[in-house]
Amino acid sequence: MTARPRIAITMGDPAGVGPEVCLHLLADQTIAQECTPILFGDASILSRVANATKLPLATPRISLQQFQSSYESIISPMIVDLQTLAADPVQPGITSAITGRAGYTYVDRAIDAALAGQVAAVSTAPLNKEAMHAAGINFPGHTEIFAARTNAARSCMMQYSEEITCTFVTVHVGYREVPGLLTKERILDVIELTAAALKKLRNREPKIVVCGLNPHAGEHGLFGDREEERIIIPAIAAARAQGITIEGPLPPDTAFLPAKRKSTDAFICMYHDQGHIPVKALAFDSAVNTTLGLPIIRTSVDHGTACDIA
Amino acid sequence: MTARPRIAITMGDPAGVGPEVCLHLLADQTIAQECTPILFGDASILSRVANATKLPLATPRISLQQFQSSYESIISPMIVDLQTLAADPVQPGITSAITGRAGYTYVDRAIDAALAGQVAAVSTAPLNKEAMHAAGINFPGHTEIFAARTNAARSCMMQYSEEITCTFVTVHVGYREVPGLLTKERILDVIELTAAALKKLRNREPKIVVCGLNPHAGEHGLFGDREEERIIIPAIAAARAQGITIEGPLPPDTAFLPAKRKSTDAFICMYHDQGHIPVKALAFDSAVNTTLGLPIIRTSVDHGTACDIA
Repeated sequence: MTARPRIAITMGDPAGVGPEVCLHLLADQTIAQECTPILFGDASILSRVANATKLPLATPRISLQQFQSSYESIISPMIVDLQTLAADPVQPGITSAITGRAGYTYVDRAIDAALAGQVAAVSTAPLNKEAMHAAGINFPGHTEIFAARTNAARSCMMQYSEEITCTFVTVHVGYREVPGLLTKERILDVIELTAAALKKLRNREPKIVVCGLNPHAGEHGLFGDREEERIIIPAIAAARAQGITIEGPLPPDTAFLPAKRKSTDAFICMYHDQGHIPVKALAFDSAVNTTLGLPIIRTSVDHGTACDIA
Repeated sequence: MTARPRIAITMGDPAGVGPEVCLHLLADQTIAQECTPILFGDASILSRVANATKLPLATPRISLQQFQSSYESIISPMIVDLQTLAADPVQPGITSAITGRAGYTYVDRAIDAALAGQVAAVSTAPLNKEAMHAAGINFPGHTEIFAARTNAARSCMMQYSEEITCTFVTVHVGYREVPGLLTKERILDVIELTAAALKKLRNREPKIVVCGLNPHAGEHGLFGDREEERIIIPAIAAARAQGITIEGPLPPDTAFLPAKRKSTDAFICMYHDQGHIPVKALAFDSAVNTTLGLPIIRTSVDHGTACDIA
């Protein structure tokens, strides 16, 4: 039997759709042939959701201590039961400080396992940011948790799909905060991380497009505060001087035209919705969210907790 | 012979693709069966572009005075030669104060004709904003020219297509300026204009979706300055109190998912790229740009002057 990589799966917020998605995943034979999923979560919640949804739950469960001492011998799907909470206080669809803390704990322990080399990668089900904040955990998202826990010097979010791939200079901040966060250095970091990741994926020099911040990319200073001239263009010039194949800043609305998508390996986006709007409009079912620049591999689903359907 | 509506077509910036697009239009028999196009432009430019592109130019030309005195009898395509400039000083692809002023003049005269009832509508080829600014004409776009020239109390841009339709609370302003321009009153104006226009088009009550400003629509105040709670939600509530079928503020990235697009007649967008990114990514070839709230009908192409290919 060939050794398949062990992949940590985090259960996501216990009140969201995460537990149900994980039950589907554990029962999926095609996934089990590609890798050995190790689910970090609470068995109490999984049991209740399995009962409520009539989904099978035959995966064996072990404690965190058992996992840590025996991970090398695990060759089939396993639940690491972190026992952070009982099923009773959790109501599907209603997140709280309790579910926020539990959801964070799954991720925290999975990162430990990845840093210790016990799993090859971490794939995350959705957290609820409000619930985490209620628990006093002030990360705006997975990207930031992974960056902080792994002491990454620099990192960025990537939304990857066959149709369109975007990376982000800023992500989970208010609309107003974006211009103040744009620096030549940060944009160049994201370009470099993107070019390196796409070169690995494509096995050739990738073509990178950088979006402007303002409508029509500022139209040569007519709109905005010349962020394109002051900040974005110098970053592009520095990247080009390194030999990166790069174009921009393009008007954000025409950057994503069909022909341009076909000829572009990745778009550098200045803010969350600049890239998330086209990714979700064009590739909602297939986009994978990953974090570039981390010492461990991390991916997640491209949706939220969906408490309304949990 | 049934009377077809006379439609004013403006030639756009003389150095852009407008003149060439207009030659195609004048030669198009299917268009001539639907309406009588009246091209407001310069015959000198059209002749040179016809020679350079080998496109036919058999349409008769008249002066503005001739048009004004005889418009009722015009039943076939016609060029109103405004004689604003000769061909010599204009180089294709190179806009200037001269071309900017000429492009504006075509629009200005076409609006006069529409206000006087001499044409049923105005359809515009692209202007170059930098060229207009060089000529001291400080409108950021057609939408604003039409609003000012017709003294419209309120108006907004609409990008209409079968796939997705968006209207805009703000349009041609810098990224930073948007939050300061959002008011409950302005958002309600745009909702009302949109609901009225879509009701006319669909002949039933339309379904309206309003986008948030911040990522995840602020996630209940976690991101941004609570623009959703302070400004957008009160506008939605006021619209709902009028009986408008309306939903929001939705997270801008999930608002445009395929299923949501199918069930939504129009999206109210807070800023230019929030709506132009999905419209151009999904419906570049078919979207029509129109202005709601004007006393005259106005549409335009969904592209720029394209000086690089002119």
